[in-house]
Amino acid sequence: MKIDIDQANTTAVTRMIEARTVLVGLGKARDVIPGMRENLLLHAGPPITWERMSGPMRGAIIGALIFEGRANDAEEAEALAQSGEIDFEPCHHHGAVGPMAGVTSPSMMVYIVENQTHGNCAFSNLNEGYGKVLRYGAYQEDVQQRLRWMNETMGPVLHDAITEAGGMDIRALLAEALHMGDEGHNRNKAGSLLYTKNLAPHVVKVAPNSEVTAEILKFLGDNALSVLNPVMAACKAMADAAHGIEGSTLVSTMARNGTDFGIRVSGLGDRWFTAPAQIPDGLFFPGFTAADANPDIGDSTITETAGIGAFAMAAAPAIVTFVSGKPKDAINATLEMYEITLAEHKSFTIPQLDFRGTPTGIDIRKAVETGITPRVNTGIAHKNAGVGQVGAGLVRPSMQIFEEALVAFAEQYGF
Amino acid sequence: MKIDIDQANTTAVTRMIEARTVLVGLGKARDVIPGMRENLLLHAGPPITWERMSGPMRGAIIGALIFEGRANDAEEAEALAQSGEIDFEPCHHHGAVGPMAGVTSPSMMVYIVENQTHGNCAFSNLNEGYGKVLRYGAYQEDVQQRLRWMNETMGPVLHDAITEAGGMDIRALLAEALHMGDEGHNRNKAGSLLYTKNLAPHVVKVAPNSEVTAEILKFLGDNALSVLNPVMAACKAMADAAHGIEGSTLVSTMARNGTDFGIRVSGLGDRWFTAPAQIPDGLFFPGFTAADANPDIGDSTITETAGIGAFAMAAAPAIVTFVSGKPKDAINATLEMYEITLAEHKSFTIPQLDFRGTPTGIDIRKAVETGITPRVNTGIAHKNAGVGQVGAGLVRPSMQIFEEALVAFAEQYGF
Repeated sequence: MKIDIDQANTTAVTRMIEARTVLVGLGKARDVIPGMRENLLLHAGPPITWERMSGPMRGAIIGALIFEGRANDAEEAEALAQSGEIDFEPCHHHGAVGPMAGVTSPSMMVYIVENQTHGNCAFSNLNEGYGKVLRYGAYQEDVQQRLRWMNETMGPVLHDAITEAGGMDIRALLAEALHMGDEGHNRNKAGSLLYTKNLAPHVVKVAPNSEVTAEILKFLGDNALSVLNPVMAACKAMADAAHGIEGSTLVSTMARNGTDFGIRVSGLGDRWFTAPAQIPDGLFFPGFTAADANPDIGDSTITETAGIGAFAMAAAPAIVTFVSGKPKDAINATLEMYEITLAEHKSFTIPQLDFRGTPTGIDIRKAVETGITPRVNTGIAHKNAGVGQVGAGLVRPSMQIFEEALVAFAEQYGF
Repeated sequence: MKIDIDQANTTAVTRMIEARTVLVGLGKARDVIPGMRENLLLHAGPPITWERMSGPMRGAIIGALIFEGRANDAEEAEALAQSGEIDFEPCHHHGAVGPMAGVTSPSMMVYIVENQTHGNCAFSNLNEGYGKVLRYGAYQEDVQQRLRWMNETMGPVLHDAITEAGGMDIRALLAEALHMGDEGHNRNKAGSLLYTKNLAPHVVKVAPNSEVTAEILKFLGDNALSVLNPVMAACKAMADAAHGIEGSTLVSTMARNGTDFGIRVSGLGDRWFTAPAQIPDGLFFPGFTAADANPDIGDSTITETAGIGAFAMAAAPAIVTFVSGKPKDAINATLEMYEITLAEHKSFTIPQLDFRGTPTGIDIRKAVETGITPRVNTGIAHKNAGVGQVGAGLVRPSMQIFEEALVAFAEQYGF
């Protein structure tokens, strides 16, 4: 079999870049996510069993089972999770992504992002804001209360507002946010303001009353990560458009479950290549240290996969106050990523680099050849269930998974 | 008389930097601006007669007289303006500032910004958005209609919303916006989103109905200059706090009326030093060229006076798409301004320069010694009344005014 890898990669990365991703609405996971079912919980990262799950992942599973009314407390939830009655599958196996634990249950409202260029859809749950939140493994009553309000009050209003607005082009929003100091992963301050601003007049029109309107606008406006989840779904829709190209060495998935870091490669089907997840290096909130940190967790690496996040860090010099380092390091982070990527993005440009496009489409060959692994910006979860976020920082996957993927590629394509 | 100029300048610039400026509400100019009276129109820049006014300034005067019901059309308004019945005085003589023509009439709603550190107040009119607007000298019925809506519908709601919010710290907002790619003068994209986001839940509560709420949130959110006027009032309050310091060579005012560029100096009282305003160098909207441009106009140079605008341009690399140049030029613009300023701002920092404070407090001695005049970012008005904005760019005042001010300083203080 004669394969033109460069041609295949050009096809893959071009599809990724050309995907115009539009937020079209929300729906309940059970109604809109393909393959969702009542006994299924989706989670971040590559496949994992309950036994191997880290604290924050278990905490989020516990919280989701309580949220679904399948358990009354943590003890009942743990028993149920261990019983074998519940299936656990990656979000990524269902066209979905979720930050941190990424746990998504059938009743949860999820964003629906449509790739209007190639027709595929992707999904992500709603962002809860900061502090004790399900995605960091907290599951207590205040977490449940917020989840219920998001699901029953905010979610339907957002759906109506987005519909009323005729959808929202998330790629265009990201392009603008990168010119406003965001990198689209850990820093979504400008993007979240643009998101809130775009929706505000429509929320006013469709919300049941002004009290709910004010609550929603405050919740969205005060959460600098409001837009992270639609952004992740948009990046997933872009990455999926680049997946499944025969002979392509492009990385179409990077995701972590808190135990393993896994990648998938466009030309290698749905096979995961995994290695133990690392502890991120970064800044910890007062009272916490690296000893409290869980290994790297979450599907939010879909941003780096699609050419933003740490790959666009040069656009976001102010982020170093949050993830550590100097503004110069932010520039260097982006420059380094050009070494292992296939193209420069047409829509995502970096003013600080003379409007150069972001490094897009990781090539496993280049990673192995250069010895450079992708950079990832990330939040840091406490290693125990029920605690929450303890910091933010930087992490890289192990080189081993790129090497294994390249070996598999050579085997499959007979080099 | 023994004067310690350095000590005086430290006092002046420290007052400028320490001024915590809070937007506390709005009121009608006649009710809140000191010295405002029925036959008075305020305008941008140093004093000027009707005879010497440029096209856009005359257009705005015509528009304001129609707005006030003093004239039915342009012809009547011109006759009235020439009659001597109307007084014209600089905004700056009344604690006020206005972008471009800056024309402010007794009935207009104005923002009230309080310097809570030193107690002085400053005022600015409301921003009309883009296109044909009064501040660029347009005065037709659509302009009048928008002014009436702003004054009668939006203004009172903004006052109630700001009051409900307990005021808004504009210095803090600016500090955040500089980390989001704004320079606070020509680029107020992030600041305007922050402003809209902060007010939104309060607007929802105090507006008479949801239709008005939606209109206001759309108007504020879609105008990337919404916050320019409160920002200018905040800068005016900062600059006024630094004015009147015996022996200080700090520039406490820079302003243009479309004919002259004028400065005032902290230790030289209320005397203006003026020279002909220049034509800005920049990018023109399709269909216009430099031949259409009016000389430099507006009080918005108060931003550069207070250490932002062109002085903070390194924070806003994306602005070059609007005012011309390369991102590197933006860095160099800020670096050059350190040569002629007295201090680095404590609140306004630039991530791109390792969070260095913006160059703040122009020293006429340094300007003359180095031969470097302050840089100013600006919009460009058509030279004829009634047309509007034709571009945006960069401009500098003539060195002559700094030399004259220095001579006057030497005379006054007997050097």
